[in-house]
Amino acid sequence: MLDALFSPGRIAVMADSVGEGTVGRRLVERLVDGGFGGEVVVVCEGGGEVAGRTCVAEVGDAARKVDLALIALEAAGVKRAVGQAARAGAQAVVVASAGFRGTDPTAVELERGLVQECEQQGVGLLGPRSLGVINVHHRMNASGAAALPRPGGISIISQSGAVTVALLSWAARRRLGLAKVVCVGDKAGFSEVDLLKALTADPATTVIVAYLESIQSGRAFMKAAERAARHKPVIVLKAGVTPAGARAAAAHTGQLADANIAYGAAFRRSGVVHALTVEALLDYASAFERTPLPGGDRVAIVTTGGPGVLAADAVDRAGLRVVGGSGSESGDGDGDGGAPVEVSSDASPEQYTAAVDAVMADDDVDAVILALAPHAMAQPLEALRALCQRSADPNKSILASWLGGQELLGQVDDLVRCSLPDYPSPERAVAALKAMFDYAAWRKRPPRIVTRFPVNRRRVERILTHHLRSGQLELSEVRSKEVFRAYNFAVPQGGLATSGDEAVEIAERIGLPVVLKIDSPDIPHKTAAGALRLNLGNPEAVRDAFDLLMLRISQRLPDARVNGVFVEKMGFSGREVLLGMQRDPQFGPMLLFGLGGILVETMEDVSFNLAPITGEEAMQMLQTTRAYELLRGAPGHHGVDLRSIANGLQRISQLATDFPLIAELDISPFIVGDAGAEPYVADARIVLATEAPHG
Amino acid sequence: MLDALFSPGRIAVMADSVGEGTVGRRLVERLVDGGFGGEVVVVCEGGGEVAGRTCVAEVGDAARKVDLALIALEAAGVKRAVGQAARAGAQAVVVASAGFRGTDPTAVELERGLVQECEQQGVGLLGPRSLGVINVHHRMNASGAAALPRPGGISIISQSGAVTVALLSWAARRRLGLAKVVCVGDKAGFSEVDLLKALTADPATTVIVAYLESIQSGRAFMKAAERAARHKPVIVLKAGVTPAGARAAAAHTGQLADANIAYGAAFRRSGVVHALTVEALLDYASAFERTPLPGGDRVAIVTTGGPGVLAADAVDRAGLRVVGGSGSESGDGDGDGGAPVEVSSDASPEQYTAAVDAVMADDDVDAVILALAPHAMAQPLEALRALCQRSADPNKSILASWLGGQELLGQVDDLVRCSLPDYPSPERAVAALKAMFDYAAWRKRPPRIVTRFPVNRRRVERILTHHLRSGQLELSEVRSKEVFRAYNFAVPQGGLATSGDEAVEIAERIGLPVVLKIDSPDIPHKTAAGALRLNLGNPEAVRDAFDLLMLRISQRLPDARVNGVFVEKMGFSGREVLLGMQRDPQFGPMLLFGLGGILVETMEDVSFNLAPITGEEAMQMLQTTRAYELLRGAPGHHGVDLRSIANGLQRISQLATDFPLIAELDISPFIVGDAGAEPYVADARIVLATEAPHG
Repeated sequence: MLDALFSPGRIAVMADSVGEGTVGRRLVERLVDGGFGGEVVVVCEGGGEVAGRTCVAEVGDAARKVDLALIALEAAGVKRAVGQAARAGAQAVVVASAGFRGTDPTAVELERGLVQECEQQGVGLLGPRSLGVINVHHRMNASGAAALPRPGGISIISQSGAVTVALLSWAARRRLGLAKVVCVGDKAGFSEVDLLKALTADPATTVIVAYLESIQSGRAFMKAAERAARHKPVIVLKAGVTPAGARAAAAHTGQLADANIAYGAAFRRSGVVHALTVEALLDYASAFERTPLPGGDRVAIVTTGGPGVLAADAVDRAGLRVVGGSGSESGDGDGDGGAPVEVSSDASPEQYTAAVDAVMADDDVDAVILALAPHAMAQPLEALRALCQRSADPNKSILASWLGGQELLGQVDDLVRCSLPDYPSPERAVAALKAMFDYAAWRKRPPRIVTRFPVNRRRVERILTHHLRSGQLELSEVRSKEVFRAYNFAVPQGGLATSGDEAVEIAERIGLPVVLKIDSPDIPHKTAAGALRLNLGNPEAVRDAFDLLMLRISQRLPDARVNGVFVEKMGFSGREVLLGMQRDPQFGPMLLFGLGGILVETMEDVSFNLAPITGEEAMQMLQTTRAYELLRGAPGHHGVDLRSIANGLQRISQLATDFPLIAELDISPFIVGDAGAEPYVADARIVLATEAPHG
Repeated sequence: MLDALFSPGRIAVMADSVGEGTVGRRLVERLVDGGFGGEVVVVCEGGGEVAGRTCVAEVGDAARKVDLALIALEAAGVKRAVGQAARAGAQAVVVASAGFRGTDPTAVELERGLVQECEQQGVGLLGPRSLGVINVHHRMNASGAAALPRPGGISIISQSGAVTVALLSWAARRRLGLAKVVCVGDKAGFSEVDLLKALTADPATTVIVAYLESIQSGRAFMKAAERAARHKPVIVLKAGVTPAGARAAAAHTGQLADANIAYGAAFRRSGVVHALTVEALLDYASAFERTPLPGGDRVAIVTTGGPGVLAADAVDRAGLRVVGGSGSESGDGDGDGGAPVEVSSDASPEQYTAAVDAVMADDDVDAVILALAPHAMAQPLEALRALCQRSADPNKSILASWLGGQELLGQVDDLVRCSLPDYPSPERAVAALKAMFDYAAWRKRPPRIVTRFPVNRRRVERILTHHLRSGQLELSEVRSKEVFRAYNFAVPQGGLATSGDEAVEIAERIGLPVVLKIDSPDIPHKTAAGALRLNLGNPEAVRDAFDLLMLRISQRLPDARVNGVFVEKMGFSGREVLLGMQRDPQFGPMLLFGLGGILVETMEDVSFNLAPITGEEAMQMLQTTRAYELLRGAPGHHGVDLRSIANGLQRISQLATDFPLIAELDISPFIVGDAGAEPYVADARIVLATEAPHG
């Protein structure tokens, strides 16, 4: 079906009319103007002629079978047209028509009918509300876009017609070569995942660019994206991530993980290059298409002055290193950084190319940024022509910023194609280089090995099933701790008391001092509710605490269900951290780590990753918090056992992966001591979902 | 002198030659081509002709006096030329020649000679290494730039020739109108401050744009910028702020405040619009020139689809609010936010303008973003023409993003000037709106009233003078606390003991429990050095602690100078915060605030402001840390007395302003309790400079 979409021999354009100004007419004209080598059959009721072709009334009237139908009819007529097209041989249809979505029930019904018809006929559907499809190497412009783009390796998947034409216009202006362009529209048929897979397998596509407003299945997308990214870069702008409404909702539920974080984590894991602005899409794509990935972070800058200063600032902000130039030897590796290589503005073209050749030949340089303002150069056109022909060695990137000189480049292009990716500003050139650097690091990542720990999975299954049956979705602290104990977390000894005597008895059995806590599913924040007493060292204190807790809770929260008072051995005091998991509706279990207690919320110092995680990824979660320095041990302060925290995160990852019906869990605080001391679960919480999520 | 620079009647161009390809020839040709109304005298040794003018050998040979000389001679000949020009009447010179800076001592000597000559002759100097000066309204292009720009209100100060030509090229392409353009070059004469003052007074200039690589006097710049910003926006890109070297140095000295932070604080205080990329300079300028400041943060978006999603994401990220559209009533004020107003892509130009007029007429809208992709519209040129003529009411901003449609706008422009600021992407349009919003907030700020507290200034003067005389630049904890006590900080009672008996005596006099600390100028970090004992409740404990401290310090740090052991009353325990000041070489005393102890460094949660500060600014310093929520009191936790922290910051501000010779100080920790409890200085440090800084 995708073959018929991308490389049809014969195309039917089905429209209500092909009169002046209609979509149907434009589709036919642009197909023919673009030099499509196959046959174009025009189908319309009213008759008429366009581009030398006379309308037939029925697609079946054409002499031979068609492969693809482009449908630009009123919504109500589309379903019938699909049937006709299928009977005439079409294996795929592109539906440009709108009117299938929104609040109107008729529209929704129309879409359902369209999808059913396509399924029954075995016809692939692109759209509805698709701008169309372009296959440059097949000389097929089935999109109504102004002209067939230049041929090249960049393929585009876009969910918006307006963004598609904007990207086409930019690509033309920046002289970028394209392979395939697909506007998925409302995505009732082919999804972003289908197209991602097709473009992964497409030898003509070297870089994939996607503008997406929604992702249908996060996990399926990740899988397809990761597979693609192993072979070619996948650059994605996910729009619509920050509606004020979503944020407001997140604040109410106290959720730390919002959609942005989930996309960030998913993209990082699967090697997707994450574009945050629409300009970044083609900025990055042109770098990936035209220059090799950098072998490291050492960047040489060749400049006439000011633009080099801007480039150096940008390199520094991106966390890369400036090398070469005066002020330091290149590649001295001491982290001091170098300076841009300055060429006088009245230098000859040969002097510019000599400066570039010198840094390109330098083994201690991984990437070269040309930061030039051509208008300020003595022989700008000649210099641009000479520089444009520089080509990188296979392990060195070279990117150019022609500050203010973009239109000069058009003149160069008449004679020689510029082989360098070029940018309007040094900052944008450096941002593209940074995207390449991160992608190269992902490509070089070690194999992911997820450790599976021996645990008592059966025990957890029993506890959860019991809760589900009784409809109790929130587990009490005591039950939650049983689950964590089954996954080999250390949990202090303890027991549930329903009288003061019993509390003392338990305390003396497990050993003083102890902690007393109200055990109630209705009191998640015990400290705030005054439902907690610490460090009780003798029987009298235990009895007093029991009575006080029961009295207070009956006064303050008379409606709370109270199971009793949990008496627990007081553990050692150490650093409090939080280990948690929240199941993202799109991407599944999202692990989180931060400092414990009130600091988590106020400091916004939390790191995220998607389960399952490896040992390295667990350590990275620690390292990417600002608190890492504190945990590792700043001067004059003990560090804690980092390995044991990472290990805890891995076991939470395993628990969340083993039991999809756990919607949310946290160990807060998890008390960690010096290396060797086994950290323990001081408080914990597990919330179940009513049903396990799909996918 | 600046009059002669900007509006000369007669200009001499002095060059070694005016042959083909020389700077001299280009200067003359461009002046004449630009339609300069005054007279142009060409001076060169070799003779020749250019643009119908014959070279004279000496500027004095010209029939009449000149006002301005443009000098493009070899460096060695420039000084003599200045003398000749001055005698021929020139009140200002523009020196384009390079060769006056760098490591070559001859070059440095040449610059000194040039500056002296200009001073002696009373001639204003622009340069050397200046690209020149343009006054569009005077039709003077004395810069060698390709063409006289369009007339308008944006004036540019630039320190780089390459960046100047790039900005000119962008301005031409974006159809921006300019007033004056000055390239300050090496700034041996006119500085950025001189030009800022001139442009502030210039009625033709409505927006000032500056690209600066260095700022000669931070305080003078702030003063001039603040004065300018009261009348017109000043947009500054400060390049060269992040050399790897500067960062490495900062890490060694443990300085928290780096150059970036200082510039940020200075720009915020003085109302400067801070551009972080070179593209932002003209992005912002065009908004300020073409549309009024927004009256608030409510943004309506008119779109055809995808571009509106991008705009909404950007508005949300900028901290502004999307209003209108379906999904919510506009201006409902409940913070839920609205959605973009969608217009169908095949709508007529009238339908587009109707949608825009509706949001423009809505009292609950402060700004309008048009997020359109013209190529995707049915009648793009007609719609653009109609939209371009929309003008804002005086309290409403309107900005347009023509995604991918920038070249269409050139066609519109042949018929009607587009009155809207326009951007290649929705994200850039929103960034410009955000810059306007922040500037408008600065314009509306309340008057700054710095409180002066009654303090014992004389006492501090005596302590500091004594230390300076003895060359002791680092004050001990005890002395530092005396200084803070003189500025009305609460300091626990205490005394210095040199024997265990004396320690016990002091402890019993001030009351137990006490704290003991080694008093030594060589041990700044007492906790780390083990030079501190807390909470000593009886005489034996005090005596033991004294002996142990003295023993340990003699073992661990035998070379430390030890004054004795300081015995101090143990204060209440509360939240630890840090109040500090570091003197920035450019902008003077930089105050800092953060959570105390190890959290300051690890959390990077510190706020900065320049002294002197007002009460409001002190509170803002608290509010802009993430720790603010914690200090204010999260659910279940006590808050602290915020007012008393702000008050402490104000008194530190006064101390740093009163005594420029204090290079650095900190109170760490400052212990703060509940409202009503007076916070106290638990530890403190003051470092003096060998001499007071200038300016």
